Amino acid sequence: MEAKDMILVSVDDHLVEPPDLFQRHLPAAYRDRAPRVVRKDDGSDVWVFGKAEIPNIGLNAVAGRPKEEYGVEPTAFEEMRRGCWDVDERVKDMNAGGVLASMCFPSFPGFSGRLFAANADKDLALAVLRAYNDWHVDEWCGAHPGRFIPMGLAPLWDAELAAAEVRRLAAKGVHSLTFTENPATLGFPSYHDESWDPLWRALSDEQVVLSVHLGSSGQLAVTAPDAPIDVMITLQPMNICQAAADLLWSRVIKRFPDLRVALSEGGTGWIPYFLDRLDRTYDMHHLWTGQDFGDRKPSEVFRQHFLTCFIADPVGLQLRHLIGMDNIAWECDYPHSDSSWPTAPEELAEVAGAAGVTEDELAKITHQNAMRWYSFDPFAHRPPEQCTVAALRAEAGDHDVSVRSFDTGRVDRSHKGVDLGRLASKATA
Amino acid sequence: MEAKDMILVSVDDHLVEPPDLFQRHLPAAYRDRAPRVVRKDDGSDVWVFGKAEIPNIGLNAVAGRPKEEYGVEPTAFEEMRRGCWDVDERVKDMNAGGVLASMCFPSFPGFSGRLFAANADKDLALAVLRAYNDWHVDEWCGAHPGRFIPMGLAPLWDAELAAAEVRRLAAKGVHSLTFTENPATLGFPSYHDESWDPLWRALSDEQVVLSVHLGSSGQLAVTAPDAPIDVMITLQPMNICQAAADLLWSRVIKRFPDLRVALSEGGTGWIPYFLDRLDRTYDMHHLWTGQDFGDRKPSEVFRQHFLTCFIADPVGLQLRHLIGMDNIAWECDYPHSDSSWPTAPEELAEVAGAAGVTEDELAKITHQNAMRWYSFDPFAHRPPEQCTVAALRAEAGDHDVSVRSFDTGRVDRSHKGVDLGRLASKATA
Repeated sequence: MEAKDMILVSVDDHLVEPPDLFQRHLPAAYRDRAPRVVRKDDGSDVWVFGKAEIPNIGLNAVAGRPKEEYGVEPTAFEEMRRGCWDVDERVKDMNAGGVLASMCFPSFPGFSGRLFAANADKDLALAVLRAYNDWHVDEWCGAHPGRFIPMGLAPLWDAELAAAEVRRLAAKGVHSLTFTENPATLGFPSYHDESWDPLWRALSDEQVVLSVHLGSSGQLAVTAPDAPIDVMITLQPMNICQAAADLLWSRVIKRFPDLRVALSEGGTGWIPYFLDRLDRTYDMHHLWTGQDFGDRKPSEVFRQHFLTCFIADPVGLQLRHLIGMDNIAWECDYPHSDSSWPTAPEELAEVAGAAGVTEDELAKITHQNAMRWYSFDPFAHRPPEQCTVAALRAEAGDHDVSVRSFDTGRVDRSHKGVDLGRLASKATA
Repeated sequence: MEAKDMILVSVDDHLVEPPDLFQRHLPAAYRDRAPRVVRKDDGSDVWVFGKAEIPNIGLNAVAGRPKEEYGVEPTAFEEMRRGCWDVDERVKDMNAGGVLASMCFPSFPGFSGRLFAANADKDLALAVLRAYNDWHVDEWCGAHPGRFIPMGLAPLWDAELAAAEVRRLAAKGVHSLTFTENPATLGFPSYHDESWDPLWRALSDEQVVLSVHLGSSGQLAVTAPDAPIDVMITLQPMNICQAAADLLWSRVIKRFPDLRVALSEGGTGWIPYFLDRLDRTYDMHHLWTGQDFGDRKPSEVFRQHFLTCFIADPVGLQLRHLIGMDNIAWECDYPHSDSSWPTAPEELAEVAGAAGVTEDELAKITHQNAMRWYSFDPFAHRPPEQCTVAALRAEAGDHDVSVRSFDTGRVDRSHKGVDLGRLASKATA
């Protein structure tokens, strides 16, 4: 299939929150304590909430920048492409990139909202979290119906409140909850603790997918403080196998057979090995560990419960039948540094062609699987023939996608002595 | 190729140290402070060195036991198959299992000898470490020439001493050093610290492979204290990708082009994805991170420096050309719980047949790669036609390999409430 004929629904992108996010959805009583954007003396913009200060890390908003300017420095809004935080500009960028629809993970609250959970004032935290979710659903996604898969954040500190928020959002059409890879490493009960059951029940009842994004455990895969940053970048996706194993062997999916989990930005090429490893572990050990999947193998259980995704993964596409044709979705990762926006369709067409992916298979990967797992129907808003890469790019017209330098000269780009320990504490979401 | 015609050299097995290990090789002045075996009140045997007490964990010596009896309890010598710690019995087990030669990692000192490094008396520690190495080379390997790839331990606390020990052992024909996946997590300088250079230089000069075994970082992949133990078992092999990334991006292999590294017990099926990830990371990021491999890709650098291995890995065999036909070796993992001894040849023949592995390719995987990487020549001791699975099994005669219960009734086999935190601190080697 040619790139121009594909229909692309991305299950992993990111938004940078605009400064006015809390103006309309937060009750007045909380407004003076809401998270706010502050311009620092060094010229960067940070979000401040209580005592926490969260920079926008450069690597998280590099779409459209020269690679020489990628980096981990704090960034100001005007140093980012506007599509990072302005939804109208985002849709123009999506059109130019041939992307029909997008699921956008949060930035400053952390992928799972742990910034809110860390605030001691739980009434305030809950109000802020709900305002964030309302903004995300009503304004970000609502501005362009059919162009965004809506997603919610949960109050991590209380499973009953989390369940209530899932049900509140589901009534607004939200079928994705962004959650942590590992609640235990964030200081909450682990996946194996029964106290989470109200949340699993709500997700199951409302057909809401637990979307766990790499890096959301609060623990970056950092080998040593003086390791090159390339080590950390390399290791992020496979690190999510810890979440996959943790949930696969847990009581959770045995007790909640309708629970669905997405391994967001986790890649796919390692999955077949992982499934073999699961089955071998079961075969060699279940007689003494007490694991029991009845007449099924762990790899079959995985395929029932887990959605995987990739940006461009030649090995994963070659092994797609070992992963499961109903378990693979595509992602763009705009505006992060792993994205190949705006030429992602051409990249995907190339790797899919090399792997001999059929048109039917590609339709599942590019949009059908995402639509089914996330109960998302963009075709209710526009007919499929207006959803293709070619049709969207025609809509984009002459929208500027040129690579531009946003470098203000403010930042030392020698990148000498990047402190990975400091970075890990700041960048982990 | 049929199982009976294969020649099998295993690059990852384990020995349990016999109680009399230090009787002959430790200078008399140290002998009363040598590590010793103590029988505990609960009937288990432990090694004691200074204030440290190290149990033999059940999972580490389960060869020939029913799977129902696998477990993580401390074990007594008579509850193990004799081939775990008696080299003559080991060779009979190897013959019965069709294995020509074996590289045996240590047990009680930890895979990288961190028990010795933890002792405050460094003179004693060095004497004990050298005695261990001499025992391993002269007695364990020396008892049956051509049947074992000799391996040494390094004094982790001093790179100059480590280099000297590498050179001392190389003069005795040792071309493998067992080392930690991550010196930083053990409290030593990281791989990126120049203080290790004397060791890298000695390894390069003497053509000694740095063999890093999974689990040797001192950090098991444990998601939460209450996670099922299946989680940890599943995650161990892929966790070694951290060591691979740490070394691949380091200055070490740029400065020491002759350095060779083995990812012991790391599996192979995840390697092609990992190589893609390395190359994509380089492509997207090297302009700002400053990585420079000249005109080579990171995946090519990997193939120059890294040996991988597997027990039975259908995905790895299917993708063998993406890994590199000169970079894959086979392992038996006797007497650990992942091993399929004594039917490993049949298991390998089955997975290799399913993947369409040719005879030439299988020869590389089963023995030629191991022989070249580890400068090991078993054919100097016996002609190849006497090295096949069939020939060795004929030598074994009616050696008993039946699955036998060693259960003394001492241990609660309900395995309820296995404490992963406690296990991690005890089992990590």
